[in-house]
Amino acid sequence: MADEGSRDEVLNTLRQVAETQSRLVAAVEALNEQPSTSIGPFPQWGDPKKIVAMDPYGHLAPWIFKDVIDNDGVDIHEGTLRRSLFEHTGGSYPELITRGDIKLFLPPIGGLTVYCFGDPAKMSDESVRLSLRIHDECNGSDVFGSDICTCRPYLIFGIEEAVKEAQNGGSGVVIYFRKEGRALGEVTKYLVYNARKRGADRASDYFKRTENIAGVKDMRFQALMPDILHWLGIKKIDRMLSMSNMKHDAIVGQGIPIHERVELPDELIPADSRVEIDAKITAGYFTVVWRERPLPLRPVPPKVKCHKMLSAYKYSALIRPFHFIGLTVIIAYFKFTKAPPATKQRHGAIDHASIQQRCSSV
Amino acid sequence: MADEGSRDEVLNTLRQVAETQSRLVAAVEALNEQPSTSIGPFPQWGDPKKIVAMDPYGHLAPWIFKDVIDNDGVDIHEGTLRRSLFEHTGGSYPELITRGDIKLFLPPIGGLTVYCFGDPAKMSDESVRLSLRIHDECNGSDVFGSDICTCRPYLIFGIEEAVKEAQNGGSGVVIYFRKEGRALGEVTKYLVYNARKRGADRASDYFKRTENIAGVKDMRFQALMPDILHWLGIKKIDRMLSMSNMKHDAIVGQGIPIHERVELPDELIPADSRVEIDAKITAGYFTVVWRERPLPLRPVPPKVKCHKMLSAYKYSALIRPFHFIGLTVIIAYFKFTKAPPATKQRHGAIDHASIQQRCSSV
Repeated sequence: MADEGSRDEVLNTLRQVAETQSRLVAAVEALNEQPSTSIGPFPQWGDPKKIVAMDPYGHLAPWIFKDVIDNDGVDIHEGTLRRSLFEHTGGSYPELITRGDIKLFLPPIGGLTVYCFGDPAKMSDESVRLSLRIHDECNGSDVFGSDICTCRPYLIFGIEEAVKEAQNGGSGVVIYFRKEGRALGEVTKYLVYNARKRGADRASDYFKRTENIAGVKDMRFQALMPDILHWLGIKKIDRMLSMSNMKHDAIVGQGIPIHERVELPDELIPADSRVEIDAKITAGYFTVVWRERPLPLRPVPPKVKCHKMLSAYKYSALIRPFHFIGLTVIIAYFKFTKAPPATKQRHGAIDHASIQQRCSSV
Repeated sequence: MADEGSRDEVLNTLRQVAETQSRLVAAVEALNEQPSTSIGPFPQWGDPKKIVAMDPYGHLAPWIFKDVIDNDGVDIHEGTLRRSLFEHTGGSYPELITRGDIKLFLPPIGGLTVYCFGDPAKMSDESVRLSLRIHDECNGSDVFGSDICTCRPYLIFGIEEAVKEAQNGGSGVVIYFRKEGRALGEVTKYLVYNARKRGADRASDYFKRTENIAGVKDMRFQALMPDILHWLGIKKIDRMLSMSNMKHDAIVGQGIPIHERVELPDELIPADSRVEIDAKITAGYFTVVWRERPLPLRPVPPKVKCHKMLSAYKYSALIRPFHFIGLTVIIAYFKFTKAPPATKQRHGAIDHASIQQRCSSV
């Protein structure tokens, strides 16, 4: 692509990039940017059976381990951190070590965003009710409102129910995972749409169409998803706004009981998405409590518009930026704050009670 | 994090992953997944001054260069491709070469999605009108409807105007770029929100708050953005649904005239986002044609809800998956299809006319 003729353009472009980057040296004060509330520490943070894929203390390490870092000369320099990240990612990113000039590391994995409705302290309070929607990204529906799936209606329903729970004195949580297109990605998703819309789009063929193109029907991996629930200190879920068995089983399997499973009301299901939802129900991918027999496999009904999916937006003013956690974030954040793994091993005597005390003084 | 106690969990998890992966060997037929329409080739594809950051022929190479590949024994094997990608990315991803076991390469850069309203062939037809919205991702607003910025209202307005243009016989295009939070990322964005909401949230301090935390006020880089417009064969824009000077200048600088710039109507601007939009106007970041003097810098008005931002959803049934292009996609797709750069150099005699002929037979 960078042939002779376009070289000037590329060079000009790179020059502009360099100029942009150089502005990075502008004084950074980081004034008032600290989280709007604190989370934890919770006993789950110290339970080795509970959090696997994230370091629950990562964001607090420089403060709660300050004395250790200061007194024991812990090496928390960039070089050590780069090597530590390199090793923790199984050697997948050699540029962490080879490219000291690259100062920002964004691993090619999605993060997640937690939207909390109501007082954040209530999320971990067992005496109040909690509604939860675990939502996996779907740009075509979530943002553009495509009615081929129930993603956006389910998200809106989840937000609305979370808001209601908060308004009634409980807590509502919606967690948005960057697992676009069942973690197969947007390209694969559209290839599957193409295939579906070219044949008879039937629930009975639904999963086969995806397997034909992706080799699997779903690449989402829910086993580590409950990490974030443990991190938030969630101990039970009163209303789970999802009928996904994979999500349900992962959460319950991690010791967090789900008292009620709430499905998307029929009137919020766009007609064009019936194929998907019927296929999921028939395949046992979803559970439907109030239906006594498997749904018949239906052909696609004519498209109709789904107006109800708009309704939750009336609550948008209630949404506040609360806390954001993601693998991307944690690693980028670690850059300046994470104590290298060696620290913890070296100081095995720091128990949960001691950490809690350290946290309380942050 | 992977201490003794959690090791069993991790191993179990990895075992499950392995089982999931092994299902990848399921027969892949890729039936009916080809694009729903063809794009180009356009003269711009062969103009070395026009497309810099993508290979316009990448998705067609195996077909249009089939004779060359077959007859001249062109090396299009995985090893060559891996080395080629490694070199083209400036050596940033050594794992392309060192990790043959990793079969999927997702570079940590965002892609883009093109949503086309109306007949795709009209995008490149100079005799019909074209409306365009270039939209940079903002999860908090686009998906969750936060009213601290105008992102979602502008996106909805853009979709609505694009649909109208299509309904009137023209073409409407919305391009969604994965440049979350002005390409500073969602974490930085929320840190800035925190800082803004802790002080007096004033337009005069708006950019300073971002600079204080990120070092720059914007990390978006619009100079390469018009590549996708050239790829789509767009030669002029009748209505540009944006007042961003950076976007405007990049497009016009690439030889694509913009006949009209259309700003978000006042009644669609959420009250809480006035700080941002006023700051942008005052800083010359946005242009406002019909205002005769710079806006006064106002303090934050009380929050009000923005109902109008919902309106475009009534058109959702018109949206169809059309074509998806992104850096991530292109590279993943190249894995099996891209002719190595050497091919083109070796066969310099293949001119645009010849390629057009080759394309027409695909």
